[in-house]
Amino acid sequence: MSHNTFGHLFRVTTWGESHGAALGCVVDGCPPGIRFTAAEIQTFLDRRKPGQSKYTTQRREADAVRVLSGIIPDEDDPDTLITTGTPVSMMIENTDQRSKDYSDIKARYRPGHADFTYDAKYGLRDYRGGGRSSARETAARVAAGALARKVVPGLEVRGALVAMGTEDIDRSNWDWEEVGRNPFFSPDADAVDRFAAYLDAIRKDGSSVGAIIEVVATGVPAGLGAPIYAKLDQDIASHLMSINAVKGVEIGNGFEAARLRGEDNADEMRIGDDGRPVFLSNKAGGVLGGIATGKPVVARFAVKPTSSIMTPTKSVTKDGVEVDVQTKGRHDPCVGIRAVPIGEAMVACAIADHYLRHRGQTGRV
Amino acid sequence: MSHNTFGHLFRVTTWGESHGAALGCVVDGCPPGIRFTAAEIQTFLDRRKPGQSKYTTQRREADAVRVLSGIIPDEDDPDTLITTGTPVSMMIENTDQRSKDYSDIKARYRPGHADFTYDAKYGLRDYRGGGRSSARETAARVAAGALARKVVPGLEVRGALVAMGTEDIDRSNWDWEEVGRNPFFSPDADAVDRFAAYLDAIRKDGSSVGAIIEVVATGVPAGLGAPIYAKLDQDIASHLMSINAVKGVEIGNGFEAARLRGEDNADEMRIGDDGRPVFLSNKAGGVLGGIATGKPVVARFAVKPTSSIMTPTKSVTKDGVEVDVQTKGRHDPCVGIRAVPIGEAMVACAIADHYLRHRGQTGRV
Amino acid sequence: MSHNTFGHLFRVTTWGESHGAALGCVVDGCPPGIRFTAAEIQTFLDRRKPGQSKYTTQRREADAVRVLSGIIPDEDDPDTLITTGTPVSMMIENTDQRSKDYSDIKARYRPGHADFTYDAKYGLRDYRGGGRSSARETAARVAAGALARKVVPGLEVRGALVAMGTEDIDRSNWDWEEVGRNPFFSPDADAVDRFAAYLDAIRKDGSSVGAIIEVVATGVPAGLGAPIYAKLDQDIASHLMSINAVKGVEIGNGFEAARLRGEDNADEMRIGDDGRPVFLSNKAGGVLGGIATGKPVVARFAVKPTSSIMTPTKSVTKDGVEVDVQTKGRHDPCVGIRAVPIGEAMVACAIADHYLRHRGQTGRV
Amino acid sequence: MSHNTFGHLFRVTTWGESHGAALGCVVDGCPPGIRFTAAEIQTFLDRRKPGQSKYTTQRREADAVRVLSGIIPDEDDPDTLITTGTPVSMMIENTDQRSKDYSDIKARYRPGHADFTYDAKYGLRDYRGGGRSSARETAARVAAGALARKVVPGLEVRGALVAMGTEDIDRSNWDWEEVGRNPFFSPDADAVDRFAAYLDAIRKDGSSVGAIIEVVATGVPAGLGAPIYAKLDQDIASHLMSINAVKGVEIGNGFEAARLRGEDNADEMRIGDDGRPVFLSNKAGGVLGGIATGKPVVARFAVKPTSSIMTPTKSVTKDGVEVDVQTKGRHDPCVGIRAVPIGEAMVACAIADHYLRHRGQTGRV
Repeated sequence: MSHNTFGHLFRVTTWGESHGAALGCVVDGCPPGIRFTAAEIQTFLDRRKPGQSKYTTQRREADAVRVLSGIIPDEDDPDTLITTGTPVSMMIENTDQRSKDYSDIKARYRPGHADFTYDAKYGLRDYRGGGRSSARETAARVAAGALARKVVPGLEVRGALVAMGTEDIDRSNWDWEEVGRNPFFSPDADAVDRFAAYLDAIRKDGSSVGAIIEVVATGVPAGLGAPIYAKLDQDIASHLMSINAVKGVEIGNGFEAARLRGEDNADEMRIGDDGRPVFLSNKAGGVLGGIATGKPVVARFAVKPTSSIMTPTKSVTKDGVEVDVQTKGRHDPCVGIRAVPIGEAMVACAIADHYLRHRGQTGRV
Repeated sequence: MSHNTFGHLFRVTTWGESHGAALGCVVDGCPPGIRFTAAEIQTFLDRRKPGQSKYTTQRREADAVRVLSGIIPDEDDPDTLITTGTPVSMMIENTDQRSKDYSDIKARYRPGHADFTYDAKYGLRDYRGGGRSSARETAARVAAGALARKVVPGLEVRGALVAMGTEDIDRSNWDWEEVGRNPFFSPDADAVDRFAAYLDAIRKDGSSVGAIIEVVATGVPAGLGAPIYAKLDQDIASHLMSINAVKGVEIGNGFEAARLRGEDNADEMRIGDDGRPVFLSNKAGGVLGGIATGKPVVARFAVKPTSSIMTPTKSVTKDGVEVDVQTKGRHDPCVGIRAVPIGEAMVACAIADHYLRHRGQTGRV
Repeated sequence: MSHNTFGHLFRVTTWGESHGAALGCVVDGCPPGIRFTAAEIQTFLDRRKPGQSKYTTQRREADAVRVLSGIIPDEDDPDTLITTGTPVSMMIENTDQRSKDYSDIKARYRPGHADFTYDAKYGLRDYRGGGRSSARETAARVAAGALARKVVPGLEVRGALVAMGTEDIDRSNWDWEEVGRNPFFSPDADAVDRFAAYLDAIRKDGSSVGAIIEVVATGVPAGLGAPIYAKLDQDIASHLMSINAVKGVEIGNGFEAARLRGEDNADEMRIGDDGRPVFLSNKAGGVLGGIATGKPVVARFAVKPTSSIMTPTKSVTKDGVEVDVQTKGRHDPCVGIRAVPIGEAMVACAIADHYLRHRGQTGRV
Repeated sequence: MSHNTFGHLFRVTTWGESHGAALGCVVDGCPPGIRFTAAEIQTFLDRRKPGQSKYTTQRREADAVRVLSGIIPDEDDPDTLITTGTPVSMMIENTDQRSKDYSDIKARYRPGHADFTYDAKYGLRDYRGGGRSSARETAARVAAGALARKVVPGLEVRGALVAMGTEDIDRSNWDWEEVGRNPFFSPDADAVDRFAAYLDAIRKDGSSVGAIIEVVATGVPAGLGAPIYAKLDQDIASHLMSINAVKGVEIGNGFEAARLRGEDNADEMRIGDDGRPVFLSNKAGGVLGGIATGKPVVARFAVKPTSSIMTPTKSVTKDGVEVDVQTKGRHDPCVGIRAVPIGEAMVACAIADHYLRHRGQTGRV
């Protein structure tokens, strides 16, 4: 809502640049009494961390999180932290800031990057490693998301890569367990070798490629959301669009729904064995009229190919000189891969926020 | 941000249901000194109004807007209203509330509608004509959007239908002038007969179909937007996702970007004749890093097929009885058509808001 | 928070000017299931209404409220309205807009009024009857407050005038029943004649005088509030300072606390008969560290003397001409009197908002 | 607005407790291009820092600020930092956390403190040194305020102590230069010895006393503010009420205005030598109708006596046992003294925020 804050009751503010001293987030409005360990947060950060495989940037950051406020240690087990209801500040220091010469990047506008637009907006910018527009900022989101997951009892938020460039997974092979076993977050074991060969070729070409990520949240209580301008699916879409390089978002059947006839897009209902209404399908992706149905919330987002490529592209300098830009050094050939844990975090934050808002307005949970 | 408000400096709050006395909006933060007439606002409302062709619902509403506050009439020309900087309240009375018997709809959960979810959230709902979830609410957005268009000098926001169900336009035939000449908002004159035949068949089947709308904003100054959680494209996506029945949003190349290689998705730059940087293409859809590049902002959104269809669908009542639901009476076979002016309004509001925010933070325009 | 909105979960937006078609409010976030009648709202509006005694302006407005949205009538008793959780829009039409000649006021800056500052801010203003700065705007607040009172079970919010100019009530005579029996909202029956004589003299002099109002809220659950920047007392102070002509606010002992020693300002505690902690006094005014103690919340605010007086005062015109300003016509000699129901409404709204926020974040009530 | 955030465009979020690892703030929305040094920020922090005289707590904290983000060092002078428009994160580590035994305080509710209310709200609390309710949080505000001062060209915000307990300054002796020369921030040199003797006696008694602070802002452009719910004086009052131990706020004539007749409270106007309107007095305290007049903005706030005193006071434990509470150790006998730089910071933040909002909505400065 604000420039660097999202959420209404579960509010996350992030700060920090690629090459400053540190980056972090402040989570305000977190319910009291939530128990967690720094190690748990770290687990999520490690999933996002660069340098995990040859397919991600080789920048090596410890990405070690420090919890600076908003908690009190458990007396019997000091590693366990308990939220007190006051803002939880978490910080990650930047340790691998190579004293690189940025004089090159300083003047040039790299195509696909925010160099030109930051200058257009602010009249100056932190050119060191992309500054605030660096994907490093997303580490703070992942830390916040780790807390958000604990706010809603029974909530589980999982993500997977469903397409990389022209390659798709086979959805009939979907296995959530597989996601953690391969460097692509692929839920389809059979696709892993295919992705590897494909991405190797892209990398050798000095090129890059985009990806599509699917995030599924189960355990979302029916009723979460709001009817008009804070729809649950709207807020999820907004949160996902805020991730660097994301160019599209869809819920449930998504764009495909535009192609369907009414009867083919309907989720019919029956009475379940427990006497309560059940949906017979989930084409809506768990949201009707902006409010959760109780079925899994399903969102997908499209990440564009990494803008930093070795192929020379035409550009200009700040001073009006025409140049060619060619990226050297460490870069992910597919930034979409690491977007999986980030997407999960953003969905978790949106759901946590709506859980608190729903409880606030209606007293229902 | 709030349940029924959007925007940060140009803030729009809407209120009203399908079958209450009236509906309307309050536009807060509108700059002073903007001149307009109620007739101008009405022009936009008339584009959205039902009953314009056989392809839209036959509900007949005058949709006549009253401007209740925030203006002072021009002394020399009382039809011209001048904004004073205080909230502009606009109201549209509901005139065609047929005294229909809603006892049927009251208990039944119509598949694809928000009936079940409103009950899940609030424990009760206004079942008359869909209540707050009725598309009628969007009239208020269109009124607000008409004002928003005037906030940014030189801004033009236009929308068009680019696909209806399985039928697409031919983009090489694009003609903005054509959009106003046919009942489908099609920019492709050659597609009009095809759309008509297709939709006639759908309607005769008692079915419905979805659509894809494209909105293009020109005259958006480079620099508008914000870097992380109030990205211009994020806010546009959020605004569009808040429209009833929208299931997906994309910017520029959108989902297609995920399929491309880096060099194919890059917008290269050169120095123009005026010595200033120019982008040689606009695959980014006018936004990089959340901030406007100065190129047209291009957004597309997918509308699902109308949920109210004559084909019986399985459902349940509030009281746990299994029933079949079959819609009778007036309904649009493709609600996507009327979403065109709504989408334009939402994009205009997002841009107006960011224009004021940008001017506020940076003093630049 | 926004220009014309207050509250975070119980959000009130007001709109309207003295001489437009109407004024009103939109209450967003109101819990569903609250039952009320328009007549109940009207009761509160009538307390604020001008023309009730010779001590208030003789402008005669019906101030009849219409509830336009966010409700569904009770099936068995259509006069009873039930909130649905969607925005409640309420409107009051301006009926007594005398076709007065405002050419005089249009150019002159009336001392103590917002004429000069509105022009300084916006470059133009609605000079008719004070426009948006007219006390008429507060009718909308009173309507919203009537709903707010129903949000918190057991809440009672009452106000009284405790000083008018140099005249004070005798607090040992305090009787809440008396407040409704005299035109001054005085809780001290013995002070009524004194106030009457004092104000008659002021009025005959063509002068005006200020007042101090005290608002007391009982039934505020311990725990409501927030620790730092949304303190319950802070939000109450903010809400009260937003009322026209208010120049000071205090909580509990207020400014007097600055004069006391620690032991004289302490609220000691003991264990009550029910085994729960009790405060032995309430010098804090029901709030410690921004959070409600469970004792009555006590706030006082100071209203400056009516700026419109018959005594000529030096001023200037928009065009730089020095003039004398002298008010003729209907005006309250003490605007503070009618501020009593407004103050109550604002306190009720603040408490309702914090009730929902507290329930949202903590799940406690 | 949020629990731990204030401001709309110049947004400050603070975090941290008395005895966590650190505390800090994130300033979001700061305009780009502002130049400052960490040493400048430190100057303001040092004014607030405890242990400066025998009249403030002897806790010794370096209170050294680190600027972690949102800036880029000047190339020619790396000590000079330039804001980039992205969030400025500032952190102060807690260095003097004596490993005190807090088992005593943990169970007991100290009268006047937020112990009972935090437990009532959250069900648990950080009892170490008062946790989030400690005055230590205000260091973060002072850091934010140091930046805010630079946002509005020509703005100067100064504060002074005008009363301590029963002792007042003589306003005819007012000298801003004197404020920095004595430990009480007294603008009256003659009052210093009197204050010293008075406070020595209070301290020897193991007691404490309150204070009244006045903050004056000059260079506030006419037009800043908003008409109804974001009035400049309302936001200043809200900001000041958010400071620990503050129980009352007033603007200009304040509570005294309630005692005056209209003609005695009027600020008359004439045309100045430059042909522009001038106010002949400033009883309004620089604000009319919520909008700045261009005259100095004058606010006063009342701070209650320090709650921690050596005199035993009756209280209870969390477990329902009646106890006496008696404070030992380091505590300010008059917390109001150190509130001077905090009050200045809060006023500066409110004005900076309104400057950006005004520029945003109106394009005027």
